[in-house]
Amino acid sequence: MFPRLSLLHVWFKSAYFQRLKALTPEENTRSQHGLFFQDGQRRVDYVLTYSVKKSSGSHSTRQSVGGEKLRAKQTQRTKDSSSVHSSTVIDMELGCSGEIFNSQEDQKAFRREEFEGKLRDMGLELEKDEDGKIPGVYFVKIHAPWNVLCREAEFMKLKMPTKKSNSIVEKISTLISKILEPLHPHVEEHQPKNVKHLSHTFSREKQHLICMNICIYAFLAGITSLLGSGVYTAAYPLHDVSSIFVRLLYEEWANYSVFYKYQPIGLVRKYFGEKIGLYFAWLGLYTQMLIPASLVGVIVFLYGCATVDDNIPSMEICHPRNNITMCPLCDRVCSYWKLSTACGTARASHLFDNPATVFFSIFMALWAAMFMEHWKRRQMRLNYEWDLTGFEDEEVSNNTTDHPRAEYEFKVMQKSLRKRQKSQDKIEKLTFQDRLPAYMTNIVMMLLMIGVTFAIVFGVILYRISTKAALHMSSSLITRNHVQLTVKTTAAIINLVVILILDEVYGAVARWLTVLEAPKTDKSFEERLIFKTFILKFVNAFAPIIYIAFFRGRLVGRPGSYLYVFDSYRMEECAHGGCLMELCIQLSITMLGKQLIQNNLFEIGIPKLKKLIRYIRSKQGAFQEEERQKKLTRYETDHFLEPFGGLTPEYMEMIIQFGFVTLFVASFPLAPLFALLNNIIEIRLDAKKFVTELRRPVAARAKDIGIWYNILRGVAKVAVIINAFVISFTSDFIPRMVYQYMYSPDGSMHGFVNHTLSSFNVSHFQDGKEPMDPSHFGYPVVICRYKDYREPPWSNTPYELSKEFWAVLAVRLAFVIVFQNVVMLMNDIVDWLIPDIPKDISLQIHKEKILLVELFMKEEQGKSYIIDSSTSTDGKENCSKHNNNSKVAPPRSRRHTNSTKSF
Amino acid sequence: MFPRLSLLHVWFKSAYFQRLKALTPEENTRSQHGLFFQDGQRRVDYVLTYSVKKSSGSHSTRQSVGGEKLRAKQTQRTKDSSSVHSSTVIDMELGCSGEIFNSQEDQKAFRREEFEGKLRDMGLELEKDEDGKIPGVYFVKIHAPWNVLCREAEFMKLKMPTKKSNSIVEKISTLISKILEPLHPHVEEHQPKNVKHLSHTFSREKQHLICMNICIYAFLAGITSLLGSGVYTAAYPLHDVSSIFVRLLYEEWANYSVFYKYQPIGLVRKYFGEKIGLYFAWLGLYTQMLIPASLVGVIVFLYGCATVDDNIPSMEICHPRNNITMCPLCDRVCSYWKLSTACGTARASHLFDNPATVFFSIFMALWAAMFMEHWKRRQMRLNYEWDLTGFEDEEVSNNTTDHPRAEYEFKVMQKSLRKRQKSQDKIEKLTFQDRLPAYMTNIVMMLLMIGVTFAIVFGVILYRISTKAALHMSSSLITRNHVQLTVKTTAAIINLVVILILDEVYGAVARWLTVLEAPKTDKSFEERLIFKTFILKFVNAFAPIIYIAFFRGRLVGRPGSYLYVFDSYRMEECAHGGCLMELCIQLSITMLGKQLIQNNLFEIGIPKLKKLIRYIRSKQGAFQEEERQKKLTRYETDHFLEPFGGLTPEYMEMIIQFGFVTLFVASFPLAPLFALLNNIIEIRLDAKKFVTELRRPVAARAKDIGIWYNILRGVAKVAVIINAFVISFTSDFIPRMVYQYMYSPDGSMHGFVNHTLSSFNVSHFQDGKEPMDPSHFGYPVVICRYKDYREPPWSNTPYELSKEFWAVLAVRLAFVIVFQNVVMLMNDIVDWLIPDIPKDISLQIHKEKILLVELFMKEEQGKSYIIDSSTSTDGKENCSKHNNNSKVAPPRSRRHTNSTKSF
Repeated sequence: MFPRLSLLHVWFKSAYFQRLKALTPEENTRSQHGLFFQDGQRRVDYVLTYSVKKSSGSHSTRQSVGGEKLRAKQTQRTKDSSSVHSSTVIDMELGCSGEIFNSQEDQKAFRREEFEGKLRDMGLELEKDEDGKIPGVYFVKIHAPWNVLCREAEFMKLKMPTKKSNSIVEKISTLISKILEPLHPHVEEHQPKNVKHLSHTFSREKQHLICMNICIYAFLAGITSLLGSGVYTAAYPLHDVSSIFVRLLYEEWANYSVFYKYQPIGLVRKYFGEKIGLYFAWLGLYTQMLIPASLVGVIVFLYGCATVDDNIPSMEICHPRNNITMCPLCDRVCSYWKLSTACGTARASHLFDNPATVFFSIFMALWAAMFMEHWKRRQMRLNYEWDLTGFEDEEVSNNTTDHPRAEYEFKVMQKSLRKRQKSQDKIEKLTFQDRLPAYMTNIVMMLLMIGVTFAIVFGVILYRISTKAALHMSSSLITRNHVQLTVKTTAAIINLVVILILDEVYGAVARWLTVLEAPKTDKSFEERLIFKTFILKFVNAFAPIIYIAFFRGRLVGRPGSYLYVFDSYRMEECAHGGCLMELCIQLSITMLGKQLIQNNLFEIGIPKLKKLIRYIRSKQGAFQEEERQKKLTRYETDHFLEPFGGLTPEYMEMIIQFGFVTLFVASFPLAPLFALLNNIIEIRLDAKKFVTELRRPVAARAKDIGIWYNILRGVAKVAVIINAFVISFTSDFIPRMVYQYMYSPDGSMHGFVNHTLSSFNVSHFQDGKEPMDPSHFGYPVVICRYKDYREPPWSNTPYELSKEFWAVLAVRLAFVIVFQNVVMLMNDIVDWLIPDIPKDISLQIHKEKILLVELFMKEEQGKSYIIDSSTSTDGKENCSKHNNNSKVAPPRSRRHTNSTKSF
Repeated sequence: MFPRLSLLHVWFKSAYFQRLKALTPEENTRSQHGLFFQDGQRRVDYVLTYSVKKSSGSHSTRQSVGGEKLRAKQTQRTKDSSSVHSSTVIDMELGCSGEIFNSQEDQKAFRREEFEGKLRDMGLELEKDEDGKIPGVYFVKIHAPWNVLCREAEFMKLKMPTKKSNSIVEKISTLISKILEPLHPHVEEHQPKNVKHLSHTFSREKQHLICMNICIYAFLAGITSLLGSGVYTAAYPLHDVSSIFVRLLYEEWANYSVFYKYQPIGLVRKYFGEKIGLYFAWLGLYTQMLIPASLVGVIVFLYGCATVDDNIPSMEICHPRNNITMCPLCDRVCSYWKLSTACGTARASHLFDNPATVFFSIFMALWAAMFMEHWKRRQMRLNYEWDLTGFEDEEVSNNTTDHPRAEYEFKVMQKSLRKRQKSQDKIEKLTFQDRLPAYMTNIVMMLLMIGVTFAIVFGVILYRISTKAALHMSSSLITRNHVQLTVKTTAAIINLVVILILDEVYGAVARWLTVLEAPKTDKSFEERLIFKTFILKFVNAFAPIIYIAFFRGRLVGRPGSYLYVFDSYRMEECAHGGCLMELCIQLSITMLGKQLIQNNLFEIGIPKLKKLIRYIRSKQGAFQEEERQKKLTRYETDHFLEPFGGLTPEYMEMIIQFGFVTLFVASFPLAPLFALLNNIIEIRLDAKKFVTELRRPVAARAKDIGIWYNILRGVAKVAVIINAFVISFTSDFIPRMVYQYMYSPDGSMHGFVNHTLSSFNVSHFQDGKEPMDPSHFGYPVVICRYKDYREPPWSNTPYELSKEFWAVLAVRLAFVIVFQNVVMLMNDIVDWLIPDIPKDISLQIHKEKILLVELFMKEEQGKSYIIDSSTSTDGKENCSKHNNNSKVAPPRSRRHTNSTKSF
């Protein structure tokens, strides 16, 4: 999503900062462990690895000699500090040694030499390490000598304290911050508080960044294609274990014992770059926001528990006197049953189906809107604190200059080759026509995959129906008693397993489809990939839930005219008390299962496994491994770590979780609590992973979380409408209301259960479908009841949908309209009330502006005064002008004010 | 809405540009008409007027003498070009002449002198004109000598042509532009095409603006309060009649004969500033977008006309054989009637109530979304072309530095006076508590005003009901026959008149409430005022229409149990065929009436009238006026023009029109056409008004249309839901669908009319309510029919709402949900598909960035090379460095590159 270009220049920048830090007394004796070049002076900023096959031994030796020669040359060169101009010598040398390279392995070596030559031209310093302890793997260590690239490295900063006089408000906030003190990580000494450097506007930092662009552009354009073609096997910066940052990160961040503390985001950003910093900031805010949500959720759940005994409908069901005879739940083998046996389910469903859930789903919709707004503000604050406010322009320009992807260029080349026969024009880009086949494949495959998801959902339904029917027919009483439990459990597990497997499949499919599409830039590639992956995984996670929420129990038909699948299986019904209970079970199993298995097991287990495999594969003799481990240099240890694969899986996991928290929250008020518990672990787990399990990612610059924000917004929007439908269609909220205000004789809920049940004359059963044991209860059943709003057998139009059905439907739909529009309006109001930029930040920015203008004005006045007194000659004027100028204002501030022009 | 500060500095800027222009051969001999100072050299940039009462003649003479003296001094001073430092002399002089000022008139004069002294201090040049031809009105002419304020006025520009090689696409676009040629105004020679100056980034223009700030800040902070206290009566810049701009604007813009052409927006912006330029650009785009909308609207209307004879329901109504006897429309005096008499109405309502209107309202919802998107793009393009891309920052900083409004400061002062007894703290701002009474008044008054609107709507209903009843009782047959027409016409006219009157009242109320609220800054004042005015005017314009659309005919009750207002008047019913027809009539009357009367009559008539009154009032002897008119100087002529009152009324008018075009478009597909016709006139009318009827407004800078965009978005959002309700509830679309697919025996519409009519047994009429003439048709009526879905008299629950009612209601609500969500989704897709920044603009911006970086890099490389060769001493280094530097790159380009740092 972000241009490699800007990634690296920030890496260089942070590398530079760290080097400054490393010269403090904290500097330790680790240099021999591979953090520094052989001379112990120059830090290893970046490592490239490549492998040479043992079989082609002769060439390898030849190469090794070349490498030897190079290193000698280089060590010599490094003695006379800056080495830009002399590197051409090496290039010539390489040029003549290229004559005998002919095999594929040789060509790779040649390309390596060529590339390394280029790097040296750019002023980078390289050191090769070919006698490492890992056979077949060779390392190229890179050092970026900052001073060679850009001379003027002084960062001129103007400190501007923002602390004002202490009022009562101030005192209260001091008190609050004291109370919150233990929640903050102990990294204060490294994070200057309330003192903001005006570095962004005043310093020449930006200049350096522009300066770096030119160098890094060539570097990264090269390295990606070289990695792709296997010339190098890996490229990564080193974990900076000697730095104080890492120690702090270990102690105050990647540590389960500090789970209750805020994250040291500033440190994370400094070590891993803005992009990863933003991810953790976002995750932190999300987790923080989950606290009130789960609190309210628990209260709502407790309210349900407390009022379960006052619930008239479940009391009526449980009352033994109301011995309503219900129609059988399956054909022939099932018999009539008493409603009072559904007592337990009815009571349980009240826990999740009470008026408080309506309030809770409105609350959660607003919560989602608040979360969005708060994130916007947090992002703004971080942008300000991290000096990113002017970053966007740069990013845009980098994106468009970004090198097209190799795949894209290959396709363009193919096209021009094909076209060359016809015309001589150079083809510059792929047109819509060229992409049409890929687009068509994309659409077809996406639809197919979604179709597969639905087919699997249907398959699970079939499994449930058929197993249930089979088990019902079993003669064993125990089997029949455990039917429900067995079927539900196995079905839920199957569902979960299928979701987990398909998740992996869909990830691969999405990547394949995006490669097929051949987007032009990396950013576009990432966005398209994310979009596709999101659609597929989202459908995969929510299809079974949507089925249960909106379709299950609605396609049953009615006694005497049931709906059959494949002419033999009756569609499932919900237990009495609505499908909400089943929805709730499915939700909790999927959510917990996904979180436990996929996130934690996969995330911790698989990287460890991979690391182990990589380690085992590379070692020849298994016995000396422990000693070897100790002797390994830093860059060798890092080589065994899992490479950083981007933040997409992390975000995706959280977005799907956000879906669970918001989409069906009306049916499962405990979802935020589960999410909260998961995330508290997740933050530290991810932190540990980033610090210890993964190779250090290249620090990437980013101003926002990109497409993820849009996806979040989309999920929040969909959540409103889905919750409206869950409340009005899945829960019994609306029928209860309608009964109470339209039909109840005394305005109470008494008689509600009877009202929702329609009558069926058992003589109307189709032949062969009636129960085998009609006199099960000791008396012949004439009328059985079923849950639906239909005309009684004795009306003119028996078993047709009754007036009550239509009335309830109308009220349900009206509720959806009202709910959706009210919530959308409230969201808009929240959006409007909370300003996007925090007030203190906008004040701060404003103050800086004034300061700049004032400085500029002073400068300008002095200047114009001087020009007044010396506007005559033209030859020597330039010098004298500047001289005069520097008398009025010192040169430093002059440099500052120059940069104010574009304000 | 915009800070006075930035207003004026742009005015100064444009004044400067015009002065450059005025030195071309176009310069004519008009200077004696008051465009220049007495010396014919210095242009009059701004005029202040004040009046001195004749009664205090002695002081006036004294003052006049002082003025004489001043002018003499000043004329002398102007001879030695720059005059910043010497103006202090005058101040001292003024200081000692202040001794005898004691009356109010004298104090005003003193404050004037004081203020003018300040202006001179700032470097402005003033000329007084006290022997003008208008008695009692005195003029102070101001000239802004640019060169005094900021010396370096050279605008260094780098031209960068964007024309590329001509491909086929290029040729086609050339062809298209040739076809569109006559639509463009003939101002090309003054608008360089495809050549964009890099002035914004490279020039020192910005520097000047910052420089100007300081001067103008004092100027405008002063002038507003002086105008408020009557020290000056007016302050305005002059219409620049000598400039070629004005001639072009007259010919190519403010001219009805060029109505078919695009507007010369560039010129408008140059002459009136960005804010007014954006208004006209917006109006132009809106009008342009109305063309496709009105085209589709006309097609939809024609489709209705063409299919009117195939419409089965109206055929059934009109067929003489279907002699359905309907229940009487009023108590006692009305008799039964035959449905076939409603034939005309039924046929007419088909014109607006056919399936095409459903399509049309979806189309219009998308149209509104497209309009928004296109406006965003147009705005972006204008921002780029007008060099406003970096403007926002500046604006923000200006707004916050903006002087608090005088009213606000007064309130703060009052508060501190009150509090001084208790504490010594200086009060800095009003807290929420201080504002609470004002807020409460605001809320109460707003609710009251909205209540008044609804009361008036109800009053008109009562008028209609009672007049109808009274006229029905009349013995004259002719009167009774014309009942409907008379009542409808008078009611609509009353409605219109009430709307027009209340519009004015509400404008005043909103202003009063906002003053009461005492917002801190002008921007906040304007936004609050606009918001209140919008709410009130919107409710006022649409309340009667909403009543007709959603309530009329729904609160009627049923035969035998009608709903009565004040126990005597039955509520109104709609004519057969739904209320859509009536809605349509009301809409067209309100819209046309408002547009014709309010916009055109008021807008042209009232300014002319005011101008006349001001002229008559000021002239003493009425006879020599014509000669005098000719002799009047430019600044005197401008004094008789209406002062510019802001763009709020113009925008408000258009937003209300936008409401008519989008909100109820489902019922009136011709609305876009009416709006289009109105706007074609409106553009030229507004243009004429700005060029000839109003004093020239101070050029104001603006980047966007501000709060209006949000209001437009709001209206477009509301439009979706209102159209959904109009289609499903006001029109008969849903009942027809339901009948066709649920009840029709043969799937056709035959029998629909019968289906929608319920039966009533006339013996169930309440006593005294039955018709006086029951055997009207020659036979006794037993069952009469009425339009509703109710149970027949012979059912178990007679006259209760029937199952059909609930089914239709459910489908109606379902349609609302589907319509709203589908349209919202489509809007989101439109939003997502159309990029906010036009591709050519983003490419252009990108190119400029690259150019900047390249230039900078060249510069930097040169510099570092030189520094390399001379980094030794520190004393003289500064000078030598700059000297070296200027050898590598010329000083000009060096200045450019300095300004690139903040990119």
